[in-house]
Amino acid sequence: MLDFSATYTDQYQLAMSQVYFKKGQKDHTAIFDYYFRKLPYNGGYAIFAGLQDLLKIIENLKFNDKDLEYLKKQDFDDDFLQYLKDFKFHGNIYSVQEGDVVFPTRPILQVEANIIEAQIIETILLNLLNFQTLIATKASRIKLVSGERTLLDFGLRRAQGPGGYYATRAAIIGGFNGTSNVIAGRDFNIPVSGTMAHSFIQSYDDEITAFRDFAEGRPKDCVLLVDTYDTLKSGVPNAITVAKEMEDRGEKLMAIRLDSGDLAYLSKQSRKMLDEAGLDYVKIAASNQLEENVIKSLLEQGARIDVFGVGTNLVIGSPDAALDGVYKLAYSNGKPRIKISESIVKVTLPHKKQVYRLRDTEGNCVGGDLVALFEEDNIKNMIHPFEPYKQMKVDGLEKEALLKPVMENGKNKLEKKSLQEIAEYSKNRLAELSIEYKRFNNPHIYKVGISEALKAERDKLIASFKN
Amino acid sequence: MLDFSATYTDQYQLAMSQVYFKKGQKDHTAIFDYYFRKLPYNGGYAIFAGLQDLLKIIENLKFNDKDLEYLKKQDFDDDFLQYLKDFKFHGNIYSVQEGDVVFPTRPILQVEANIIEAQIIETILLNLLNFQTLIATKASRIKLVSGERTLLDFGLRRAQGPGGYYATRAAIIGGFNGTSNVIAGRDFNIPVSGTMAHSFIQSYDDEITAFRDFAEGRPKDCVLLVDTYDTLKSGVPNAITVAKEMEDRGEKLMAIRLDSGDLAYLSKQSRKMLDEAGLDYVKIAASNQLEENVIKSLLEQGARIDVFGVGTNLVIGSPDAALDGVYKLAYSNGKPRIKISESIVKVTLPHKKQVYRLRDTEGNCVGGDLVALFEEDNIKNMIHPFEPYKQMKVDGLEKEALLKPVMENGKNKLEKKSLQEIAEYSKNRLAELSIEYKRFNNPHIYKVGISEALKAERDKLIASFKN
Repeated sequence: MLDFSATYTDQYQLAMSQVYFKKGQKDHTAIFDYYFRKLPYNGGYAIFAGLQDLLKIIENLKFNDKDLEYLKKQDFDDDFLQYLKDFKFHGNIYSVQEGDVVFPTRPILQVEANIIEAQIIETILLNLLNFQTLIATKASRIKLVSGERTLLDFGLRRAQGPGGYYATRAAIIGGFNGTSNVIAGRDFNIPVSGTMAHSFIQSYDDEITAFRDFAEGRPKDCVLLVDTYDTLKSGVPNAITVAKEMEDRGEKLMAIRLDSGDLAYLSKQSRKMLDEAGLDYVKIAASNQLEENVIKSLLEQGARIDVFGVGTNLVIGSPDAALDGVYKLAYSNGKPRIKISESIVKVTLPHKKQVYRLRDTEGNCVGGDLVALFEEDNIKNMIHPFEPYKQMKVDGLEKEALLKPVMENGKNKLEKKSLQEIAEYSKNRLAELSIEYKRFNNPHIYKVGISEALKAERDKLIASFKN
Repeated sequence: MLDFSATYTDQYQLAMSQVYFKKGQKDHTAIFDYYFRKLPYNGGYAIFAGLQDLLKIIENLKFNDKDLEYLKKQDFDDDFLQYLKDFKFHGNIYSVQEGDVVFPTRPILQVEANIIEAQIIETILLNLLNFQTLIATKASRIKLVSGERTLLDFGLRRAQGPGGYYATRAAIIGGFNGTSNVIAGRDFNIPVSGTMAHSFIQSYDDEITAFRDFAEGRPKDCVLLVDTYDTLKSGVPNAITVAKEMEDRGEKLMAIRLDSGDLAYLSKQSRKMLDEAGLDYVKIAASNQLEENVIKSLLEQGARIDVFGVGTNLVIGSPDAALDGVYKLAYSNGKPRIKISESIVKVTLPHKKQVYRLRDTEGNCVGGDLVALFEEDNIKNMIHPFEPYKQMKVDGLEKEALLKPVMENGKNKLEKKSLQEIAEYSKNRLAELSIEYKRFNNPHIYKVGISEALKAERDKLIASFKN
């Protein structure tokens, strides 16, 4: 129904490509930087996600017969269509590892390819990386306030159409434990879980019969939804009765779920009732318009919730809902390139580059990433990209190169990792950041600077345009 | 890569279904209502979208081998998996027509099927209808302020992953004219258009050579991006030079595009320069973080813009980004069903129902939709669902039945319509609403009421739960 053919792109990529093709520029090498300008949620960091999916798609990207037939009707020229028929991405991609913490204005990923191939993949690259990075970041914020409690994604029904498929994947990278989304569970090997809807209880004449039938029909991971009629007067007492009946059969009720009302109050009362009935092993799950601020508040109020089901606000990345990632030309046609702008913060960085995470001699992050020319060595100073009087000595620091080759000549070179391994990596990388970068209000700003040599190259190009 | 198999659902649908299956309830008929509770954007209406896609998917929905193998590992029982192997949706669906204006709290669509089939389709139904309805509504608001100017969707790169595919489709229903999204253009027969990126101009040593090459390589729908260096000192003068050269070849420059700076001022100055050069046929397109309020303001300032390219804010439906559509049980197991709640506005409506749009004897909409029992006739009064003292006489009014059979016994019965026909229908239906419902601030509230018979049935069920 929805394929990832090479027409998953903007028309202007094809229009420009036809011109490059006809003007003899099709084999010119170009380098593009992927980065974003503004952190989502006014936060202090983002979690990079989507790379594995992107590379798989790019490796197999082609124009199929349906595409070519369509483009012929769109008035593209025959010689160019013949070229598209054999289209395949042959370029190199250098990238930060999926799950790493990333910051604005510095390259997260670099594409080095002939200019047509580099343009045609732009749209799908932005589409997938912007979205998954947004959602992994959102999930990470929810994880930060939830500690070791279990986090489940319940969002597919409110997701932006098939965007929900990748939202679930990104949520796991950001620290979620499971999902209700079966197809994402199937494809990304994510634990799925599911309980019952209100409709299940409504379809019975009384709540306890519904609970009994459910416990008998699906005993292994039985979670009873207790708020259909009256949580404390009906739902929890009925759940306790059924839990005791399960005990008689040698089974255990896994949890009850609260989906409305005052979750702080109801969870505390429910916990008390369950404990008094000797059911201290029965967990309490809660859902209903949750997000990081609500969860933080619930826990501050002493809510006794073991499992949070988070839906809409997670999968759409509310309130931001989009990451402003861009793809900017740094080199083409044998020359470094910049985009100038009246606003200095929008001026791009020319040349192929490397990004280094700075660490002290004990390996601790010092809170800065350095952008330098790719082949540069022996870098002594890091300079603020727009406020040159802000400088930092870096010659005594360890420099971890972040951009690693993940695609070479069109071949996916990414180390095979499960989603759980990516999530674990992300957790460890985030742990290296000190707490000031993670607070929600006015987080500390992570330093991103450039090398003197890169600054000189950029300033030279700016000057040449001023003339 | 991403298929629409029947595992595009929440795990709890399958958990409940296994219980229904094992408890001998698999052939019980259920009726579910699809509706939403709150209009997006604090607006006065929404545009219903996504129906055609949904029905196509449901008609072909099945569990494939990959699904069944996966579910086996998820501990579903063998007899139930055997049932899923033969799963197909055999039910009936009644729906408002795609593109119609719709309002909160009343059914937009009703599913009548055995309870397992009805549950399994719930998630994909909500996922597709919520999202497309949100975006069609957003597009419609942008269209309202833009008059006859051309509206283009440029959003794929910032869309929520593959959600962008359906965002483009929904934008057309809401009144957009075209898109940059090639794959959506291919599949939904939408006009696609594309110009050039800044990277194209950057990849040349000077702007005019870039413009010349582009005009020669893609002369038929040539749009030149004029803000790379300096819009009025470089971009527009160079575009004028190239437009004149095109005239010499018997070609015409279609438009220039502004993508930064003060669009009101720059468009007025550019228009003047183009007109003075005898290029009054060259249109002006503008893009850069546009949405309905920005466009309204630009036009109030006299901006001379013929084409608006709208990206992020359209395709993610900012600032709301999700419609709160729900799917509620109204009938099952031979009985009408309601969901009670402490909040009366969340109490659902039991039984199979019909919804009527009320018109006076001349056929004009009177600003109300009436929800009644399906087979009800001779309805005299409409009552506010939660404030029963608010009543309206309806016996002299024409009643247009809105819920029409669109799927019968699992067969798609939807009248074949192009996207353009759906958009045209939507335009006409929206035109029937008076302007007070369309304003952005405190719009007039469209009345949605229930019949006396439906109210009596609901109240009887509420009373039975109170005992």
